[in-house]
Amino acid sequence: MSTFDKKEITKKSENISEWYNDVILKAELADYAPVKGTMVIRPYGFALWENVQEIMDSMFKKAGVQNAYFPLLIPMSLLNREKEHVEGFSPELAIVTIGGGEELLEPLAVRPTSETIMYEMYAKWIQSWRDLPMVINQWNNVVRWEKRTYLFLRTSEFLWQEGHTAHATEEEAIEMQTKALEWYRKTYEDYYAMPVVTGVKSETEKFAGAKTTYTIEALMPDGKALQGATSHNLGQNFSKAFNISFQNKEGKNDYVWQTSWGFTTRSLGGLFLTHGDDNGLILPPKLAPIKVAIFPIFGKDDEKVLAFCKSIKEKIDAFSSEFGGTVEVWDQSWKTIGWRTNEAELKGIPLTITVGMKEVEGNSIVIKRRIAIEDTREVHTKVDLVAKTSEDELKKLQNQLYVTAKRYLEENTHLVESYDQFKEIMNESRGFLRAFWCEDKECEKKIKDETKATTRCLPLDAKDEDGTCIYCQKPAKHRWYFAQAY
Amino acid sequence: MSTFDKKEITKKSENISEWYNDVILKAELADYAPVKGTMVIRPYGFALWENVQEIMDSMFKKAGVQNAYFPLLIPMSLLNREKEHVEGFSPELAIVTIGGGEELLEPLAVRPTSETIMYEMYAKWIQSWRDLPMVINQWNNVVRWEKRTYLFLRTSEFLWQEGHTAHATEEEAIEMQTKALEWYRKTYEDYYAMPVVTGVKSETEKFAGAKTTYTIEALMPDGKALQGATSHNLGQNFSKAFNISFQNKEGKNDYVWQTSWGFTTRSLGGLFLTHGDDNGLILPPKLAPIKVAIFPIFGKDDEKVLAFCKSIKEKIDAFSSEFGGTVEVWDQSWKTIGWRTNEAELKGIPLTITVGMKEVEGNSIVIKRRIAIEDTREVHTKVDLVAKTSEDELKKLQNQLYVTAKRYLEENTHLVESYDQFKEIMNESRGFLRAFWCEDKECEKKIKDETKATTRCLPLDAKDEDGTCIYCQKPAKHRWYFAQAY
Repeated sequence: MSTFDKKEITKKSENISEWYNDVILKAELADYAPVKGTMVIRPYGFALWENVQEIMDSMFKKAGVQNAYFPLLIPMSLLNREKEHVEGFSPELAIVTIGGGEELLEPLAVRPTSETIMYEMYAKWIQSWRDLPMVINQWNNVVRWEKRTYLFLRTSEFLWQEGHTAHATEEEAIEMQTKALEWYRKTYEDYYAMPVVTGVKSETEKFAGAKTTYTIEALMPDGKALQGATSHNLGQNFSKAFNISFQNKEGKNDYVWQTSWGFTTRSLGGLFLTHGDDNGLILPPKLAPIKVAIFPIFGKDDEKVLAFCKSIKEKIDAFSSEFGGTVEVWDQSWKTIGWRTNEAELKGIPLTITVGMKEVEGNSIVIKRRIAIEDTREVHTKVDLVAKTSEDELKKLQNQLYVTAKRYLEENTHLVESYDQFKEIMNESRGFLRAFWCEDKECEKKIKDETKATTRCLPLDAKDEDGTCIYCQKPAKHRWYFAQAY
Repeated sequence: MSTFDKKEITKKSENISEWYNDVILKAELADYAPVKGTMVIRPYGFALWENVQEIMDSMFKKAGVQNAYFPLLIPMSLLNREKEHVEGFSPELAIVTIGGGEELLEPLAVRPTSETIMYEMYAKWIQSWRDLPMVINQWNNVVRWEKRTYLFLRTSEFLWQEGHTAHATEEEAIEMQTKALEWYRKTYEDYYAMPVVTGVKSETEKFAGAKTTYTIEALMPDGKALQGATSHNLGQNFSKAFNISFQNKEGKNDYVWQTSWGFTTRSLGGLFLTHGDDNGLILPPKLAPIKVAIFPIFGKDDEKVLAFCKSIKEKIDAFSSEFGGTVEVWDQSWKTIGWRTNEAELKGIPLTITVGMKEVEGNSIVIKRRIAIEDTREVHTKVDLVAKTSEDELKKLQNQLYVTAKRYLEENTHLVESYDQFKEIMNESRGFLRAFWCEDKECEKKIKDETKATTRCLPLDAKDEDGTCIYCQKPAKHRWYFAQAY
């Protein structure tokens, strides 16, 4: 049971990471599990993930993506097949060495990602251009070892979707890679209300085994960047390692061109960080599991008050809505209105309505927004219009959250012209630093060692320019996004 | 790519287990994965599971069940907490001993089921009667070691839902246990078109750690029984082991009363076995991923034929339907009509429509059912009525499959009065044998050793009768269901 007390929550403005942990635990989004590095996603947090799954899965299915399920346990010999891939993942593996009471002849890795097990099967299933494209997705759990839990943001096990495709040409593969990135951008901007930067990763930062990696980067309120999702062009790296060849229309054999792309529960950590305030979570209406909470004031004629609350709920439920969250009447008589209000704020519920005899007998009610818009949180409406007004307010809130985050992103994206300026910003507010870089790994490493900033991405639409590397002053063609990463 | 040839499929009537493997592989429901005991669920098979998930999840949510996610890896010390439970599962565990490159101090089991990890958290979350009931479900993957794969029916890893609840009284817990069983019965009978027997398991056959286990039992065409799903009353076994106590309304401390219940991808194996025939799968329309396949005959005026096919598809798509499967136009010009027909039969698609110039120019078309009803597979209809007629035929098919399976179940359920008769039936046709048993474990074991038949269940509504045990002739109160189990 929630034993919520505002004093138990660190102020976001004072210490964002303590605030983050406090809010997640108190709002019952998640909890620490017995093994270090792991967590439980509690019903309120999981309902958010279910909403995300529904949104994304429907985008995928419209585009012909097929869902499937591949085994959790991967023989080490399969993982070893692609050299860069296994080198990238080896340090993070959880390994099963005992099965059915016996030591296994070959240890099995708990999947950190499914390229290898899937492509072993693709090699069997793909023979001809008629079998292409193969566009398969999985919603599942993966394990990448972590010693310390950072709820949602860093855990040994997380949930995600992983899309894995095979194509007859590299052109088609790049089209797929781009499409996946666009799904992720849309999910972040239109649903999470989080503005993002999209671009390509540097050689150092790309996925182990990929030819190129596209990325979604978001900026958190502490000025650090969060990698939101990635989409990889695998080229023919895996198809050659796994011998996925096909007969093309001209009757010749070729290796397929592949992509993989993933979006994880980590994204929810970004959501909580981006929108929350000192009072708790703020959930965008399009993702909020509960969109409206109604609080009856008990004391006088409780039945009438409760019946009125239910009639408001029914009105909102019946209204055709683009917002899928539920409307709940919080009738726990043992909790004061103040308690329930605080709890609804903590949980980030977009709208609340308090109902006493005044509302029952009058013709107007007050809808309270989770955040102020134009300096006010209260919206007065006629009872008959409660559904329509709620819908309008949900739309406004969704928009307002995006606008506020967008302004923050813009105000904290800096055009940086010198390494001194670069270091100064990294010492103070951080943020996205757009600076020329010569694309040499050595400079990238030194900048990281000296400032904690890593290359986040080069925007996809970047044009060639004439600049000099912020670090070595040699010629540089592009301004990259730098930031300290989560 | 499907290289379908009818000759490659063993006849169901000749060898049902070879037929079963042939059909599952050829219809691309699943495939063998690289590790012994594991399999891949391919898109066509997974689409069935997605339909099942949607159906069940909606029943759950209506009843207030909340979904959540708990970690995959369970410390051995937690599993050891409930003695019978760990003894039951130990021989089947996959154990992680290495994580992040280091030998772990405490090995972790890949969850075979989640009682222990969930109840460790419940103990933390539950303090008062106000926190009850706690009704949480997970859709996830579990691992129980197997050395040999029997596609869907016996695999080291399977997908399922596991519901885990805590209540203030045992009465409420039994109510929950019963409700879960009813969801399972409804899913089998109304959607899988499989008639089932519901009952309680014997002490020997119940879940490791449960007080009582309710079960769903289905009868396969080879006369063997398939345990379809189970629902357990855990009593206070786990709440005492995990110290899940609460203050009741009277202010006193008590341990919670618990249930757990699960439904797995194994059920799909039962579905395929039950309805298939020599030509392949037969899928009940309510679960079929594709409900209608339309085949254009190419040769003369291909564009017109294709446009006509699409218009039929649109008509059926637009019709309000209780059947969620898609309507597909199979326009692969490199496959003959015969090939496409065979493939649709193999895949168990309920209805097919072949379209040539005759149909384009006329006003009537023929819908072909996957199975004959009243001795015919062909239904003639006007073009304008194609959607309504399809809907009617899907309904009829759904019903026909159930009726046929029900008749089989009834004809193969035997009232058995002597052990000789028991052995004779087990030697010949098998089936469900309803026989008096004294409820002594010794007799149960001897019957199993001598005939392969195990107790499947005692029907929930069984009344006390006066009988004598089929084996030892001592007094027996109930007729139990016996059968050889899958």
